[in-house]
Amino acid sequence: MMKKPKGEFFIKIAVAGYGNLGKSIIGAVANFPDIELTGVFTRRDPKTITDARCSVFSFDDILNYKKQIDVLIITFGSSNDLEENTIRLAEHFNTVDSFDMHNRIGKYRERLNNVAGCGNHLSLVSTGWDPGLMSLARLYFASFMPYANVTSIWGEGVSQGHSEALRNIDGVKYAIQYTVPLAASREAAYRGEFVSAGELHKRVCYVVCEKNDRKRIAEQIKNTEGYFRGYETEIYFITEDEFFEKHTRLYHKGEVISVGKTGDNTQLATFSLKLDSNPDFTANILLASARAVDRLHKEGAVGAISIFDIPPRFFIHGEYGGML
Amino acid sequence: MMKKPKGEFFIKIAVAGYGNLGKSIIGAVANFPDIELTGVFTRRDPKTITDARCSVFSFDDILNYKKQIDVLIITFGSSNDLEENTIRLAEHFNTVDSFDMHNRIGKYRERLNNVAGCGNHLSLVSTGWDPGLMSLARLYFASFMPYANVTSIWGEGVSQGHSEALRNIDGVKYAIQYTVPLAASREAAYRGEFVSAGELHKRVCYVVCEKNDRKRIAEQIKNTEGYFRGYETEIYFITEDEFFEKHTRLYHKGEVISVGKTGDNTQLATFSLKLDSNPDFTANILLASARAVDRLHKEGAVGAISIFDIPPRFFIHGEYGGML
Repeated sequence: MMKKPKGEFFIKIAVAGYGNLGKSIIGAVANFPDIELTGVFTRRDPKTITDARCSVFSFDDILNYKKQIDVLIITFGSSNDLEENTIRLAEHFNTVDSFDMHNRIGKYRERLNNVAGCGNHLSLVSTGWDPGLMSLARLYFASFMPYANVTSIWGEGVSQGHSEALRNIDGVKYAIQYTVPLAASREAAYRGEFVSAGELHKRVCYVVCEKNDRKRIAEQIKNTEGYFRGYETEIYFITEDEFFEKHTRLYHKGEVISVGKTGDNTQLATFSLKLDSNPDFTANILLASARAVDRLHKEGAVGAISIFDIPPRFFIHGEYGGML
Repeated sequence: MMKKPKGEFFIKIAVAGYGNLGKSIIGAVANFPDIELTGVFTRRDPKTITDARCSVFSFDDILNYKKQIDVLIITFGSSNDLEENTIRLAEHFNTVDSFDMHNRIGKYRERLNNVAGCGNHLSLVSTGWDPGLMSLARLYFASFMPYANVTSIWGEGVSQGHSEALRNIDGVKYAIQYTVPLAASREAAYRGEFVSAGELHKRVCYVVCEKNDRKRIAEQIKNTEGYFRGYETEIYFITEDEFFEKHTRLYHKGEVISVGKTGDNTQLATFSLKLDSNPDFTANILLASARAVDRLHKEGAVGAISIFDIPPRFFIHGEYGGML
């Protein structure tokens, strides 16, 4: 592979959103020799952001930067307005996002496909570690082990999507959600038994309230569709001091296991992740995904795709034949 | 997904070779509702094969069956004449194989690409569990964790390629090779250190000789390029009785681990397999791969490809959106 000259041959990336994930992406760009960062686009006043190690622009001005952006990585929260923003921008930019509300991905992708297609752009939805790497494990295992049960297990660790869902509840000041796998159910899954996600996990929430309105907040949490309803959910109300002392680390774990029999033979495949920093891990996947989107778009692909549509080699930089 | 009528809409598969892998494929077809088996093609006298649960034809006649074969799965041994046979047949058939001599795959694929391309056919090389699923783990990990060390560990288990390499040595009647990971090296790899394949494994061989020629055979084993040279290799000469009593199970294990740091945070991804029957496991992967080849060929793809060129969704039967 030829070393490319610095400048116009690089893949030019921009990041929308300066939260945990946006910050991790800025830090991770150094791992990608073929990518350069145009800057971050924020909905806050750019002048108030002084710690960014890149240019900071106003999100309102993003359409003026079309020429400087090959792929836009959108990091807004899934339970907020990520969908609407991506759909609005997909006409003008190739996009990558890590939208994580599994039951809404299909509809979202359909709407995005029309917009991106009209604009001759390419949008990759829902890449990261889950959806993303764990999704790949689920699909490959189901394809290659049609005789097996495939089970996904998350935790113990912090779900950023669920934590954000907590913070979106009126009256919640700070909150974090730990997903905790239940040992007995996990063992059953390893024996090849079918176990539902609800049976496999409990959700443990630590919440700091604006004012004392615990009963209403607890009810609202337990009934949040797509996040908490159907799960054993524990809610602990704590002080702001305790929150910042004990609950700021964004670690997580996940595994996909596939167990089945061919005749009398047991076959087991497992994929697992143990992440000290979820946003750092996801950031690198988003950047490799942006690389794939740029390459596919240059080959003529338009519309909205998922990670299932991308030949693996599009993600890698440099020589890869030896990895077979 | 519509249920397809029995008959011409099925993907018609044939198997070349009636060894362990060929037999496992015949048994595995039942897991694939969109695939039907035309039969197995053997280089032995078809009349001598009475236990096959499908039609048995002479390999010499295979060109007469072009119309009944959408994809031909070639199961001959990698260290024998798999390459030459596939190259000869790729002009006439779409092919799938599990060629496993890693250092020769590039050259093999290049030659195959020309032949398959001329014949307007598509050949998928080197699919299975390694090369195959383990290769996918290596490539995705290297792409998504550019800050990490990626290490492959095999065993403890039976390498069919290495066992076959033993059996190809003049004077060897029966033989099996166990790949055994070395615990200290494995721990170092889990700490993120770079450890070579030679440092990670020893190779333990059990050999039954035709006649007493142990010294020459042992020398020849230790010097086999691509299989034993560069590895700690133990060789035990045993009797035929002991061989059939203790060494007929084709189990295997494998793992790909990826460990690295983002800042102060350690990130670990692992993929692992624990297989009671290696040929049964591989058989299902070959069938899902044949499905992908048929679909890609119908979309116009020709030439020789690897698993890295195939969008994951091509392997799966039926609805898969929910796996994201």
